[in-house]
Amino acid sequence: MPTTDLAFASRDEHRAWLASQAALPLGFRAGASRLEFVPAEVHKPSRMTLTLIALDAPTDAFAAMFTRNAFPGAPVIVGRRRLDAPRLGAILVNNKVSNVCAPGGVESAERVSAEAARLLGLASDEVLPSSTGVIGWRLPDQAMIAHLPDVVAALQPASILPAADGIVTTDLYAKVRRVDLAGGSVVGIAKGAGMIEPNLATMLVYLLTDLDVPRDALREALRDAVEDTFHAMSIDGDTSTSDTIALVSSGRVPCPDRDAFRAALRAVCGDLCEDVVRNGEGVHHVVRVRVTGAPDRAFALGVGKSILRSPLVQCAVCGNDPNVGRLVMAIGKYVGEHAPGVDLGRCRIDMAGRTIFDRGAFRLDAATEAAIVAHLRGAELYQSTPPADGLTFRPPIAFPPHERAVEIAVDLGLGAASATALGSDRSHEYISENADYRS
Amino acid sequence: MPTTDLAFASRDEHRAWLASQAALPLGFRAGASRLEFVPAEVHKPSRMTLTLIALDAPTDAFAAMFTRNAFPGAPVIVGRRRLDAPRLGAILVNNKVSNVCAPGGVESAERVSAEAARLLGLASDEVLPSSTGVIGWRLPDQAMIAHLPDVVAALQPASILPAADGIVTTDLYAKVRRVDLAGGSVVGIAKGAGMIEPNLATMLVYLLTDLDVPRDALREALRDAVEDTFHAMSIDGDTSTSDTIALVSSGRVPCPDRDAFRAALRAVCGDLCEDVVRNGEGVHHVVRVRVTGAPDRAFALGVGKSILRSPLVQCAVCGNDPNVGRLVMAIGKYVGEHAPGVDLGRCRIDMAGRTIFDRGAFRLDAATEAAIVAHLRGAELYQSTPPADGLTFRPPIAFPPHERAVEIAVDLGLGAASATALGSDRSHEYISENADYRS
Repeated sequence: MPTTDLAFASRDEHRAWLASQAALPLGFRAGASRLEFVPAEVHKPSRMTLTLIALDAPTDAFAAMFTRNAFPGAPVIVGRRRLDAPRLGAILVNNKVSNVCAPGGVESAERVSAEAARLLGLASDEVLPSSTGVIGWRLPDQAMIAHLPDVVAALQPASILPAADGIVTTDLYAKVRRVDLAGGSVVGIAKGAGMIEPNLATMLVYLLTDLDVPRDALREALRDAVEDTFHAMSIDGDTSTSDTIALVSSGRVPCPDRDAFRAALRAVCGDLCEDVVRNGEGVHHVVRVRVTGAPDRAFALGVGKSILRSPLVQCAVCGNDPNVGRLVMAIGKYVGEHAPGVDLGRCRIDMAGRTIFDRGAFRLDAATEAAIVAHLRGAELYQSTPPADGLTFRPPIAFPPHERAVEIAVDLGLGAASATALGSDRSHEYISENADYRS
Repeated sequence: MPTTDLAFASRDEHRAWLASQAALPLGFRAGASRLEFVPAEVHKPSRMTLTLIALDAPTDAFAAMFTRNAFPGAPVIVGRRRLDAPRLGAILVNNKVSNVCAPGGVESAERVSAEAARLLGLASDEVLPSSTGVIGWRLPDQAMIAHLPDVVAALQPASILPAADGIVTTDLYAKVRRVDLAGGSVVGIAKGAGMIEPNLATMLVYLLTDLDVPRDALREALRDAVEDTFHAMSIDGDTSTSDTIALVSSGRVPCPDRDAFRAALRAVCGDLCEDVVRNGEGVHHVVRVRVTGAPDRAFALGVGKSILRSPLVQCAVCGNDPNVGRLVMAIGKYVGEHAPGVDLGRCRIDMAGRTIFDRGAFRLDAATEAAIVAHLRGAELYQSTPPADGLTFRPPIAFPPHERAVEIAVDLGLGAASATALGSDRSHEYISENADYRS
C-alpha cells in the first residue's frame, strides 16, 4: 500500500509537490545537462541528457541490484564489477542509448566513467554508469566525454529534481519520494515504464541517504525492500536488459535506529514503485492484488502476477468491465501449471468489498456487478480520448490525479503465506506508444 | 509450417473454399440450430447455437484432451469422465454460456447430454458436451432440452460446415481443414480466439475420421499431434477454462497405414492451429518463432513463447517496427529466469533471411532494417482503420487474405533440441474487443 493518499489537479500542482520533496541528503550534489549527438547507426541528429549524482566524498556504503535478464546491458556488466570496488563517488546516467549488446559497449561505458571520475577527482572504478534507451546502438562516448565538464558544472547540493527530470525518457512526470528520519533522510528517484523510442521499459532507481549505515547492512536492507516492492510489480511481464536499483549513503548523519532506516527505505521504495506503475505506459488503472492463504510466498506472488499479466484481465479492467471470470481463469491457469491437482475448493475472491467467488462458484448479482463497476471507475486515472489522426492515442494528462487502485483480494485457502502484487491495465495508449510510432 | 499457401480476395471466395473442404467422413452427421433464451443472471433475451455431431453408430475409438486450468468448466469435468466410458455416439456444443464455476453446472451439463442421448437412442454417457461463452452464468438447460429435437432434425451427412459455423462465437470466419487418405479422411473444425462477449478465448477443436484406428492408437496420435501444434501456440498466454480437443473415428474405412494417419492428423491439427492464430483477436500478423540449439525441447519452446508473449515484441510487430532489441530482451528474460548463468555468447537471431544478432552483439544497418520492415509488411493481414466513434476498432476484413507469417529464427548455441512456436502481434483491435465493449 502507498504511504500517501495524494491528489493533484494539474501538472503545476504536481511539480510544486515534487519540488517540496526534493531536498538532497547531506553530502550529495546532483545535476543534469543535455547533449546533441549523431548516432553512428542512423546519421540523424539526436539528443540525450547526462545526469550526474556525486558524493562530496567517496563512500564504501553503497548497494545495487540489477536485471536478471541473461543479456544484460554493458552498464549492468560494469555495475556488477563496481559492487566489489572499495568505494563509490558518483553515478552517471544517460538516456537515449541503452548500450546493450552493442559492439565494444563495456569499453565505452568504462571510458565515459573514467573521464567523469577524472573530472571529479575520483578513482576510475568509483563511478557507476547507467544507460537507458535504444538497444543495439553504440554509446556516443566521445560526444559524452566532451560534454562531461558541462554536467559537472551543473552539480548543486539543493535539489534532486534536476536528476529526477534528467533520467526520465518519456515518463509523463518525474518521480521523487522521501522519508525524513532522525535529522537525515532517504530520498529516491525513479525512471519508469514510458518511452516511445525503440527500447525497453527500463527501470532505473537511485536511492540516496545521509544516514550512516554500513555497506553490508545497506545491501541487506535494499534486498529486503526490493523484494516486497519492485519485485512484486509488473507492467507488462517483460524484463529490461538495463534495470538498475542503487542505494548510496554519504554517512553524514548518525543512524540511531537501523529498523527505522529499513522502514524508511521500504516506504520510499514502495512509494516509488506505486509511482512507476501509475505512470506506466498507457496505464488507466493501477491494480493491486493481495493473495493470502498460499502454501508459500512464491506461490502467492505467482498467482498475483498471473492475474496482473493476463491480457484479458488487463483489458477488462481498462474497460471498467466487471469481467470476474477472467480472474478465475488467471488463478486456475497458474495453479494448473505450477501445482496441478491442488484443490481450489476453498478459494475466495473479493472485489469492491464484496465476495464475488466462494467455494468453487461465483456469487454474482446486479448489485455486485454495479459495485465492481463503481470501484473500477473510481480507480480510473483517465479515459481515452479519440486521437486526432484516428490511430495514435496519447495520454491526456501528465500528472497523477489520485493514488487509488483497483483492489482485488484472493484467498487460496491452501496455507498461511501471502503477497501483494502491483500492476496495471492494458490500453490503446500502450499499443500506440509501442507499435504506432514507426509504422 | 502450414501445409497450404492459400490466398483469398473476399469472404465469398473463402466461403467457397471452406465448402469444398467440408465433406463429412463416412459414418457422421452434423447439424446446428439457434435458440433464444433468457439468462437467469441478466434477464435480457439472448441467443445461442446448439451444434450436434453424431455418429451413425457409437464408437469406442475416441480421444480428447482438455485445458490444464485448475478451474475447469463443467463440460470439461464431464468430458474427463467420458474418456473412461466404453463408447461415444455424439458431441453436443453450445456457445454463449461456458458453464464454468456456475452453481449446479455439472448436473446441468449431464441433464442436457442425457436428453440428447435419449433422442439419438444412445446411452446417457455416450454424449460429450462442450460449452463456450460467458463464465459464471448458469446453463439454460431447460430451454436447451426443449430445443434439442430441432437440433437432431438438422443433422445431415453431407457437410461439416454447419457445425463449423455453429461453434463459432465471434471468430471472423469458420475453420475447416481436411486430409484425404486411402479412401477415407481426417476432417477438423475449430473455434478460436475471437469474442466480444465477457468470456475467454476458449478453443474448441473437433476432429473426425472414418479411418479405422483403435482407441489407444487414436489417443496416442492425438497427444503427439497436439504437442507440436496447439501446445506450441499462444495468442495471449491465457489458458481458457474450457479448451477441448476431441478426435472420433467411425471406423468405416480400413486404415492401411498408421503412420500416414498420424501424419494426416498432424497436418489437420497444424493447419487448424494456423487458422486459429490467424483469426485470433485483433491479429494483424501471425508470428512463427523457430528455436534451435536448445538443451531440450521444453527450453526451446519456452524461449519461443517468451518472445511471442512479450507485449513489447507484439506491439513492435503490429507496427511493422524492426525493434529487434525486444527479441534479445525476451530471450534473455527467459534464460535469466529459467537457466541463470547459462552462456548465450553463441546465440544467433535471423529475420527476413538475414542474421541480425550474432555472438552477443547486433549486426544492424540500414539495409537490414529495410529488409525487416519489408518482411513485416509482407506478413501483415490488414492495417487498422480509424474507428467511426474514435475508440472502437473493428477488423476491416472477415477472411484470411494470405497465409504468410513473420518468421523469426533463434539459434541458442546450447544443444541439439528445437521447437517452433506460433503466436501473433497485439493491436488496437484486441484492446477494443476485450475492453471497450462494455465501458
